[in-house]
Amino acid sequence: MSAPLETWLNGSRVGDALAFSRGLHYGDGLFRTLLKYDSQLIDLKLQIIKVSHDAQALGLEPPPAELLMEEAAAVSAKVRTGVVKILLLRQSGGRGYKPQSAQVDRLLQCHELPDFPARHWREGIAAIRCGLRLGRQPALAGIKHLNRLEQVLASRDWPEGAVEGILCDERGAPICGTRSNLFWVRDGSLHTPALDGCGVAGVMRDKVLACGTALGLKLRVESRPWSVLLEAEEAFVTNSLIGIWPLRSLEQRVWQAPGPLTTRLAAVLRHPYLGFS
Amino acid sequence: MSAPLETWLNGSRVGDALAFSRGLHYGDGLFRTLLKYDSQLIDLKLQIIKVSHDAQALGLEPPPAELLMEEAAAVSAKVRTGVVKILLLRQSGGRGYKPQSAQVDRLLQCHELPDFPARHWREGIAAIRCGLRLGRQPALAGIKHLNRLEQVLASRDWPEGAVEGILCDERGAPICGTRSNLFWVRDGSLHTPALDGCGVAGVMRDKVLACGTALGLKLRVESRPWSVLLEAEEAFVTNSLIGIWPLRSLEQRVWQAPGPLTTRLAAVLRHPYLGFS
Repeated sequence: MSAPLETWLNGSRVGDALAFSRGLHYGDGLFRTLLKYDSQLIDLKLQIIKVSHDAQALGLEPPPAELLMEEAAAVSAKVRTGVVKILLLRQSGGRGYKPQSAQVDRLLQCHELPDFPARHWREGIAAIRCGLRLGRQPALAGIKHLNRLEQVLASRDWPEGAVEGILCDERGAPICGTRSNLFWVRDGSLHTPALDGCGVAGVMRDKVLACGTALGLKLRVESRPWSVLLEAEEAFVTNSLIGIWPLRSLEQRVWQAPGPLTTRLAAVLRHPYLGFS
Repeated sequence: MSAPLETWLNGSRVGDALAFSRGLHYGDGLFRTLLKYDSQLIDLKLQIIKVSHDAQALGLEPPPAELLMEEAAAVSAKVRTGVVKILLLRQSGGRGYKPQSAQVDRLLQCHELPDFPARHWREGIAAIRCGLRLGRQPALAGIKHLNRLEQVLASRDWPEGAVEGILCDERGAPICGTRSNLFWVRDGSLHTPALDGCGVAGVMRDKVLACGTALGLKLRVESRPWSVLLEAEEAFVTNSLIGIWPLRSLEQRVWQAPGPLTTRLAAVLRHPYLGFS
């Protein structure tokens, strides 16, 4: 977007740099969220690798990794524990959808850490199957871009007590949680859905797969029917803030959580929230 | 999003209301764009009906129509001719995808009118078929929401001279232009794709269908294969700024543009840009 002649927000004139950002108008950008814990920015380098990968996938020029690392440290300098969100927004220029630039604006934010109950790890969580199904878009699959209305709509109207919603693709295969990646264990193999049609490839997903390799597990990255998930021996969701949350229930299925292999993976992962720090 | 503790934009602290808008972070909102021409806000009431419809589809509470009409007039008060963009952004509250509120912020902007060449109507435009295919998402189909990365990516890398790109759905059926709705004429019937899986239902699409009815044409609103579009006798794209642009070429197909029925429709439509004002 080129700068508008005039912008009003709720009836008052604003001269706001973000009011004509392509990030706001089109979701033309991406983000990653990471944990600051005990003054450490957890997996910062891995997160910035993801930022750079996603940027290139959208035709954006990633900023130097050193600059993002400095800014992530600076924006969170006042807190020992918190959440840092790094956003890249395609710079404006011209008008309309056609991107005129690969340059980005860097928006970094520091938030308070949400209050995750420790029992989510120790006892597992109740999950539901979302009614909304993820559309298939290979050009955007895996990328943590700013077009997240599917996740917003899928997060509405959960029953009391549900902590995460599992999203399926158009064919009904489970893909991910609304804000997490999905894994399950069966016959000693570690399974996670392929993300070639939809879903977001999180840093924690890569780390859990690496931990599975370290434990000598057979890894299977592929889409499977819903029934396969319900028949799994263990199941869990992951993201960079929570680490691992085992599933305790999903529809009629109830698991003893965390399961033995999930516990072994968590011991290798050593995420601060799981009692291993 | 609740307010962050700290926000930096390109290395400087900002205290910007939009920096934690759900519009920016998730594309959780919608917009409509309308023409101001000769001091008239064209089809303002119809646009606000669309805004209200889209808001309800996303679980948002639309502001009173009178308020939006007043603000659209106020934001464009200084220009006789221009473009007014009305955005509704879901208000913040809580953290994460789950919407905590149906209340919206109203962001209105006035832009200069793009310089559309008169020959686009008089001689038609060259269009191309976009490589990217629209994902199917019935929960969002028809809505002019802020998740527009598909349109951004589809607008890249057009050959010289191409003025619009035609987007197909996953099965290869033509749906719309990147910034327009699509029509074609065959055997005296007026055709436009159904928008139940993807695409945006524009005000001008409704108006052209109404003009078709006024002319006694048979209307067919349904998805059809790509080959049907290429075999059409006339084809054109529409939006609220341009009115109608006939297609002069699409892949190997060349049309005499504007065709006779397109010309009759335009005469009923009387859009300011088409020489009928």
